[in-house]
Amino acid sequence: MRELQDLQLLIDKAVTELKYPDYPAELYDPIFYILSMGGKRMRPALLLMACDLFGGNVEKAMPPALAIEVFHNFTLMHDDIMDKAPLRRGRTTVHEKWNQNAAILSGDVMLIEGYKLMMQVEDRFLRVILDIFNNTAVGVCEGQQLDMDFEVRDDVKIDEYIYMIRLKTAVVLGGALKIGSILGGADMKDADLVAEFGENLGLAFQLQDDMLDVYGSPEKFGKQVGGDIIANKKTYLLIKALELADATQKTELNKWIAITEFDNQKKVEAVTGIYNAVQVKQYAETTMHQYADKAFDALEKINLPEENKQYLRDFADSLMVREY
Amino acid sequence: MRELQDLQLLIDKAVTELKYPDYPAELYDPIFYILSMGGKRMRPALLLMACDLFGGNVEKAMPPALAIEVFHNFTLMHDDIMDKAPLRRGRTTVHEKWNQNAAILSGDVMLIEGYKLMMQVEDRFLRVILDIFNNTAVGVCEGQQLDMDFEVRDDVKIDEYIYMIRLKTAVVLGGALKIGSILGGADMKDADLVAEFGENLGLAFQLQDDMLDVYGSPEKFGKQVGGDIIANKKTYLLIKALELADATQKTELNKWIAITEFDNQKKVEAVTGIYNAVQVKQYAETTMHQYADKAFDALEKINLPEENKQYLRDFADSLMVREY
Repeated sequence: MRELQDLQLLIDKAVTELKYPDYPAELYDPIFYILSMGGKRMRPALLLMACDLFGGNVEKAMPPALAIEVFHNFTLMHDDIMDKAPLRRGRTTVHEKWNQNAAILSGDVMLIEGYKLMMQVEDRFLRVILDIFNNTAVGVCEGQQLDMDFEVRDDVKIDEYIYMIRLKTAVVLGGALKIGSILGGADMKDADLVAEFGENLGLAFQLQDDMLDVYGSPEKFGKQVGGDIIANKKTYLLIKALELADATQKTELNKWIAITEFDNQKKVEAVTGIYNAVQVKQYAETTMHQYADKAFDALEKINLPEENKQYLRDFADSLMVREY
Repeated sequence: MRELQDLQLLIDKAVTELKYPDYPAELYDPIFYILSMGGKRMRPALLLMACDLFGGNVEKAMPPALAIEVFHNFTLMHDDIMDKAPLRRGRTTVHEKWNQNAAILSGDVMLIEGYKLMMQVEDRFLRVILDIFNNTAVGVCEGQQLDMDFEVRDDVKIDEYIYMIRLKTAVVLGGALKIGSILGGADMKDADLVAEFGENLGLAFQLQDDMLDVYGSPEKFGKQVGGDIIANKKTYLLIKALELADATQKTELNKWIAITEFDNQKKVEAVTGIYNAVQVKQYAETTMHQYADKAFDALEKINLPEENKQYLRDFADSLMVREY
């Protein structure tokens, strides 16, 4: 089996070789720009990995893998407009560097180019793969809409949050793995199990991410501690803490959410204090492990040689953090 | 052969029967809203017409026809954001009625839903039809980008303008007719000829539209005379007039383009005066007839019974205005 890292590099190289017209420049330049920002190329690499696991030809799976990457970057380009984000990966976002119209229209073309790449599969795969791609794409849009809806609601429940992150982040991982499995020769039952593995692992990973924001050591993860708290981001921790809090704690939490002028460190300390008092981290960990377990359960059922399953287990383990 | 009007009604009914989820409401409600605004349903009806002309099953061609209509409305939803349009067909645009993010994301989903509908064809047609759809969709995006580019340029040439309107409006007509022809059983040569017919007819129709804005009687066409002139819209007439004008006329034209406070009627009269002086209408008519002739030339080459060709001729004739 090929190393995931090698597959990521393979994607990275192939991305730089994507060809689009020069004209109209404002339509196509933003595509090259956002694709050149890098990123881990995890989604397309997972597609190739799944293909490889079932003994498929990784090179032939490259166009659909690139389709996933182009699609993912389309969602980033449009999400950045909607979130009014000035920066992505430390660089100016497309709607800031060009203008909003360029970001809308270039994103539209990227979605179409995603389909064009996804169609570069053998005829026998065409319909089944496009069906998965369609469902994945609709799911991501629904997830983004729910994310925006939740921003302005103060009664979001944990189940709704899980439903949202499943759509917004996990289904693409599941979809990429499913497409790769099918291209590799898996039957639909195994492809669905790999997707289930990926989707649940994606959920566990997102919940871990929510926790690392507050409890991760900045030296280890290179992130500002409490960024989500400062931004009032509705994470698992905040939603669950509001649910667990008594009247006093709830008032205190809502006070910190409401005020617009504050000292970052003080807010992070105060909110973390409430998180600790209601033991929200333990809840988050339990839920995270539930999804990780679901992922491993699905994995065990896949009809693959033990060696290949071990590869998937190792991959899953590498994503989950042991020490904060 | 079925009457085009009947096909338009058929589409109109089928559009109201399209099903989308209720949730998230802000994602799906705008889709129903924009689709309920009506319009002539010309593009999907042309797809059905082409299918019918080659003896195909019109009912089976309904999903791809709806795909064209959903796609067209996706472009309207995003174009209205880009053009900051408050109204469409007399009703509030989606980004005004909801908000801009809803219009971006609902539009994205509509593009995906367009693909889902377009995929509801027999396997033997799937790849060829999606290839045409992809090319059409990219063309429309390029056309929209060029249209925006041209708005801020003052040196647009007639060839560029024709290239732009071909992409922005004519290729969808060509694409719809080509898809319909193939579904009806046409071979690629005939499908290309029908597309050529439609694309050139679309160009002629757009040029006619440019002329009607200035020279059409308001009683006959129910439009405000000179709307394009008032809005400084870069039509064939304006671009060609700037090309034909002598120094004095050019200065006069540019003066009217530059001033922001003016009496509508005076501006329309003055600009029309220059148009008449440089005889731009004759140029526009000549060019329009050239494209109409190209359309008819392609039509004659199509391998169809005389009766069916006459149907297409009648259709083309009905689009072209004899009296202003």
